[in-house]
This record gives sequence, structure tokens and C-alpha cells, in this order.
Amino acid sequence: MPPFDEFGLIRAWTEGRQAEPFLASAGVTVGIGDDAAVVAADTGTDWLLAVDTMVEQIHFKPDTMEDADIGYKALAANVSDIAAMGGVPKHALISVSVPPGWDAGRMERLYEGLYACADQYGIAVVGGDTTSSPGHLVVAVTLIGCVETGTAIRRSGARPGQFVFLTGPTGLSAGGLHGMLAQGDAAKGSARVPVPPKRLTDAHRRPQPSVKAGRLLQGFASSLNDVSDGLASEAWEIADASGARLVLRETELPISGELAGYAGRCGCSALDWILYGGEDYVLLGTADLEHEAELRRKFREERLPFFVIGFVEEGASGVELEMSNGKRKPLLKRGYNHFAKG
Amino acid sequence: MPPFDEFGLIRAWTEGRQAEPFLASAGVTVGIGDDAAVVAADTGTDWLLAVDTMVEQIHFKPDTMEDADIGYKALAANVSDIAAMGGVPKHALISVSVPPGWDAGRMERLYEGLYACADQYGIAVVGGDTTSSPGHLVVAVTLIGCVETGTAIRRSGARPGQFVFLTGPTGLSAGGLHGMLAQGDAAKGSARVPVPPKRLTDAHRRPQPSVKAGRLLQGFASSLNDVSDGLASEAWEIADASGARLVLRETELPISGELAGYAGRCGCSALDWILYGGEDYVLLGTADLEHEAELRRKFREERLPFFVIGFVEEGASGVELEMSNGKRKPLLKRGYNHFAKG
Repeated sequence: MPPFDEFGLIRAWTEGRQAEPFLASAGVTVGIGDDAAVVAADTGTDWLLAVDTMVEQIHFKPDTMEDADIGYKALAANVSDIAAMGGVPKHALISVSVPPGWDAGRMERLYEGLYACADQYGIAVVGGDTTSSPGHLVVAVTLIGCVETGTAIRRSGARPGQFVFLTGPTGLSAGGLHGMLAQGDAAKGSARVPVPPKRLTDAHRRPQPSVKAGRLLQGFASSLNDVSDGLASEAWEIADASGARLVLRETELPISGELAGYAGRCGCSALDWILYGGEDYVLLGTADLEHEAELRRKFREERLPFFVIGFVEEGASGVELEMSNGKRKPLLKRGYNHFAKG
Repeated sequence: MPPFDEFGLIRAWTEGRQAEPFLASAGVTVGIGDDAAVVAADTGTDWLLAVDTMVEQIHFKPDTMEDADIGYKALAANVSDIAAMGGVPKHALISVSVPPGWDAGRMERLYEGLYACADQYGIAVVGGDTTSSPGHLVVAVTLIGCVETGTAIRRSGARPGQFVFLTGPTGLSAGGLHGMLAQGDAAKGSARVPVPPKRLTDAHRRPQPSVKAGRLLQGFASSLNDVSDGLASEAWEIADASGARLVLRETELPISGELAGYAGRCGCSALDWILYGGEDYVLLGTADLEHEAELRRKFREERLPFFVIGFVEEGASGVELEMSNGKRKPLLKRGYNHFAKG
């Protein structure tokens, strides 16, 4: 059923299917619909539960991802969901469905990448299920994290008067993917295309989820989301969940020099990648103005980037871009089409 | 890579990849290799973590499973893993990769079946990820359960002198699948084949995991496994994990009247289904002789079946069948090939 309206349909299949009192009795404080579910566990600790699936041809193509990159990124996408709740990732379970063309060596490299991510973030891989697949590779990772009781940062807390922040530049992963696809096409013909900088291709193949940033934001951020589907799409999720209006300032959006340079060389719009490119795994959120100075200081001390990119105002749920000429335009809700070349 | 040596390869990819002190510091008391992982959580509670994947054409074919059955069974397979540790299932996360031919109505029925199983076993569905699939349907379910600290029943505790038990008859699911496949083939030609009893087809499509039996066995069973890959295969897993020799008595193996009748009508071996048919989700385990009378009493009180089917003896790891003539033969390690007609 492409294009797949994930959000609307999942809501239709799942919403209201289990009664609130039952969910509450099971310790569920946040169910389906945020980056991760929240379940009360130990005294002082809530558990965060998230699952993410990567499907060959849908989320990646073999010509832009090494086998080890696939394993790394399948886990990294989940780490980012835990980071977006302000939590710490702890335990992972891996489901891999292996197509006929894959041999044991390829699987070993996939696991190598997966463990590289696990080791980097201190995650214990505790279980898995490996099956055959008649068609394509499917990797589903479930990650369990934890957070101090009642402190998980949801999407729904954005309020008028707050500022909107971003913990790093976006668009790098989309630029890197564009570059690799263009190189692949050029290799088939005689055209010459610019080589994408390594920082962009690395951003696509080995994204770095923002666990440390999420921890710094705990107790300060009123809403939080990881940029997995693109800045505009994630801002819309916060706006919808909070019933708020987010205004992003074009002049304040961070842009990496490598991305600007590469976009210029290949005649592409860096702004399009910045707004609609996904899988950067930086964090987007909102906070009260009174916390701005302290957050800037905390991020500076940890040598982590922190950008104030807009504000929340009264009005119907929505997201607008304030352009450099002061005019505004609505931002589309659309996420990023991984394989459309922009 | 069919046939897929899941056990050997997964061990090669994962064993020793993370240091014991690290896993211990993460609260992991049982990692990869049992029915579920065990993680220390709340004071007094261990968490059980399990993932199971169902792939179209590999684990089921659309002509033997309604869409709702697929959803039901995807969760039930996980419930059985938690039951096999003596635990209680609590929270589920669902990953579904949806092929182009599936519409929203089919997905809704899949979720209906899934929630039917969740409601039956008191499981809160707390999250999921739905993606497109270019080929076949893939459903991966992660289930989190709990058990009193230190009481999870592993596969590795079988000791010489103990008895081997089974909490219900096996082979029903395999008999039901055989019947449905034979009916499908007959519909294409002119041959007439016996109709499989509903109890057998229900056993295949709506298996009933043995959570209550697992709870009764807590504190008594020294090893436990659910019969997902067939009685012989599960007995081998216990034998290998325990370093013990299991002897099953052919005359003590429970056989349902429906299975015996159907096998007779279609000229098949009921014993083959009983030993090698999978997905019955009853529990196989071992316990000390001194507990036999009490276990029989507890199961009788709960109106649950309980069969003593053999014993554990000294010797190299292995599984033998003591036939009705008193002679023994080794049982093969092989699991069940879902689509080979026996």
C-alpha cells in the first residue's frame, strides 16, 4: 500500500483497542504514538520501549550501505528514539529475516556493525530471532532504555512563548545519500558528478544518535523529537501532539559548510535537504525562555551544538517557516522520500 | 541461505561479542540462547525479553492462515517463550512490514487477531513500527514479561534421575497444517482427502500458549522449553544446554484421539507429527522425582494436563526414544519442515 500513511492507519488499527484502566494497571504511562512507550518499572525508574524496522529497497539500497552499516543503522535508529525521550539505551533484541542471496559472511558483517553501535552506546544485546526471508532483508530492532521516573520527554509539551531548538545541523544524511546515488548513476553513464564530502556520506551510513544531548535536556525541554523523518515532519509531530504552532526562522537554521558547498556544486537546494531530509538523529524540541541561557551553557560545556531556531505561538496546530525577507510560509507535513532525487 | 542453521550461526555471530562484566553490569542474568533473556529490574522482579518473527511463505502460507490468525499467532509464539521461562507476559511491541498487495482492511484484521491474543493473555500493546515491504509480509513481535527474581526456568537444569514431563499432547498443529495443505491440493485436482478435525486446524491457527502451566512449574521444574520446533528438537535443546541424556518412552507420549483418527484416515504417521511437528506451545521440561506427586496434584486442581513421558540418565548429551518393544533408538535433532508433507 504505498504511499503508506503510517500515522493515520496505525492510529486506526490501535487507538482505543485496550482500555485505559487496563494499560494503567500494566504500568503503561505512555503507549503507542510517541518515540517510545513508557512503562513504570523499578522505584525511581521508568522503562522506555521502542522498535524500528529497516527494510531493503524501502529504507536502504545495497549500493549506498555496506552490510555493517545496515546493522549499525538499524540499532542507531532505535537509540535515537530513546534519546528523544531523554533516556539511556540499555538492552536490545534483534530480528533479522535473511534473503537467499545473503551468506554467513554478510550476516557476520551486519552483526559487526550492530555491535559497533551497541558498544558505542553501552547497549547489551540480549536476544534475537533469525529467520529466512523469501525476498528482501528485514531488520527489526527492539530497544529498551530507562529514564528517571516521570521524566520522559514527550512530544506534547510545546506551549506558546517557548523557543524551538535543534541540537545539530540537519540535511547531511540526505545530502550524503543524494551524492552516493548520483555517483552510482554516473558510474553507469559518462556524466561527471561532484563527489559528496565524507562527512555527508558518514552522516547517512553511520548516524550518531544524540543520547548525551537528550540527557542534558532532561528537566528543561517541554517537548522533544528526533529528526528521523525530516525537520518539517518532526516539527509537525510536536505541533500536532501539543496543539501548538511552531515558527522556524530560515536564517537561524544551522547549515554545515560541507552541505552548502556540495549543494552548490551539484545545483541542489540545501534548504530542501535541511527541511525535508531525514535520518540526521539530532533532537528538535521546545523549552521555556527562562532555560535558554542555562541550556546554552550546559551544551557549550559538553562541546555539543545547540541552536535556537524559532518559537511557539498561539494558533491552530501547524508549522511555518519565517523566511529571510520576514514573510512566512506554511511548511508541508511531508517526510522525506528516501529515493527521490531532489 | 536455506536450510538456515539458526542455532550454530547465531552463536557464531553473537557469542563472546560482549564481555560478561559488561552484561552483568547491565543486569543481564540470561543473554542470547534461551527462550527469553532475563534482566534484573525492580526489587523482587526480573524482566523477560523475547522476540519472534513470522515471515510469509517461510512460517505460513496465506491459504492456511486467515489474516487475523497471522496476527494472533505472531504474538502467541512470543507468549509461549515467556511461558517457557515460567513468567507472565506484560508488554508487546509490533513491527509489521506490509507488502504491496495488502490493503488497510487486511491489516486491520491482522491487528484484530493480535489484540485477541493480547486480551486473552492480559498483554498491553505499547508500541510498533509499520513499514512497507517490497516482497512479503514480515511480523516481528517483541514481548516483555516478568518473573519473581531468580526464578526464571532455564533449559540447562536437567539432571540424571529426574523425570521428563509434557503439559499437553503434541503434533496437533502439524496434523492440522497437513490437513489444510492436503485440502488445498485436492481442491485443485479431483482427489478426495479426509477433512482434518477442527481441533487440529485450530491448534495450528490459534495455538494456546501455556502461561498457567509455566506458573505452576515455577519452583519445581529444573528445565523448561516450549514445543515450538517439535518435541524431539526441544528435547535436544534441553539435553545440549544441560549436558544430559533424555529418554522418552513411546508408550507414554500423549496422543489426542482426533490426531490418531485423522492420521489413520489419511495414512500418515501420528508419531512423526508428535515427535517432529512444531508449534504446539505445550511445555516440555524436567523435575526431581520428589516433586512428581505435587505437580500432578497442582495440574489436576487447575484441570490442566500433565504427562510424565520419560527420564534423564547419565551419559553424553542426547535424546533417545524407548520404543514399545523396550528397544531404544536415537531421536534426530531435526526440527519440523513446515511445508514438507509427511
